[in-house]
Amino acid sequence: MDHAIKVSVFLGISLDGYIAGADNDLSWLSAVETDLPEDTGYNALMASIDVLVMGRNTYETVLTFGFWPYEGKQVVVLTSRPLAPLHGETSFNGSLRELLTELSARGLKHVYLDGGNVVRQGLQQQLVDELTLSWVPVTIGKGVRLFDGDMSMNHWKLTSHQAFPSGLLQGRYKFDKAM
Amino acid sequence: MDHAIKVSVFLGISLDGYIAGADNDLSWLSAVETDLPEDTGYNALMASIDVLVMGRNTYETVLTFGFWPYEGKQVVVLTSRPLAPLHGETSFNGSLRELLTELSARGLKHVYLDGGNVVRQGLQQQLVDELTLSWVPVTIGKGVRLFDGDMSMNHWKLTSHQAFPSGLLQGRYKFDKAM
Repeated sequence: MDHAIKVSVFLGISLDGYIAGADNDLSWLSAVETDLPEDTGYNALMASIDVLVMGRNTYETVLTFGFWPYEGKQVVVLTSRPLAPLHGETSFNGSLRELLTELSARGLKHVYLDGGNVVRQGLQQQLVDELTLSWVPVTIGKGVRLFDGDMSMNHWKLTSHQAFPSGLLQGRYKFDKAM
Repeated sequence: MDHAIKVSVFLGISLDGYIAGADNDLSWLSAVETDLPEDTGYNALMASIDVLVMGRNTYETVLTFGFWPYEGKQVVVLTSRPLAPLHGETSFNGSLRELLTELSARGLKHVYLDGGNVVRQGLQQQLVDELTLSWVPVTIGKGVRLFDGDMSMNHWKLTSHQAFPSGLLQGRYKFDKAM
């Protein structure tokens, strides 16, 4: 990694590699919904980060939720179009790599990448330090792939793993090296 | 499943969903090679099956190995072209589903599907009962995907999991139901 800020990705993924179904369907995630929410480590990760970075599409989707799930966190939206901040979020018109350099220069230590496009950009450019994949025990057949386009060939170190009663299987990986 | 014979799949897969790299490169599998081979359960599975089914491409590749790894096992090659058996293997000109019906009628109880094409066909047609995926801790960027084309939407039950010192993370799944 050529940046000082730690970059984390934390995603649920189907066994066949999708992070969303056709038409952005997310109903398949209900396969791992349980009466008591499982502690997958997401909240701990959120508590450890300084800033979230997301693309415009993810941001627009979050706005439709009717509540702002990132209260108390810095949020930067990667976008070239004007943005009217509603919750203190800022926008950045440039590459993810440039943004990370700027966030690092501002003394920030830990960033969370949110949304398929930004995550994919981070993976393609070898900017991700920590990758947590939680495999949902479904095959959904079509949709939005996490890994798509020209990815590079990299080795990751499995640092921990955990299975949950719902059938979710989680692996935590640290970027090791290009192969 | 609409067949009496148990159908198992056991595959190594990259984090980004490939079972072979560009030009069928398999060198990335060396990422999980260790001095003492790890017991991933492959040998136990092989000992439990009656018959292997593979496609013509996989068969031709195996022939280049210089040795026959399936000694003592029935092997059926799905192919429409003539085949000159060298090790007692037989050929079947028809669909995987038809073959499974025939194998079942012959009293066989457990089949192993080998090779991307046949496995993909089995998954697409919901013929697979047991799916063991061993995630190799690499992203390879391009190649032959395990899950490709029109797959159906299915729920699987995680029956066990295991991580290995090499960083291999294995999940064993049983077909549960169509979603």
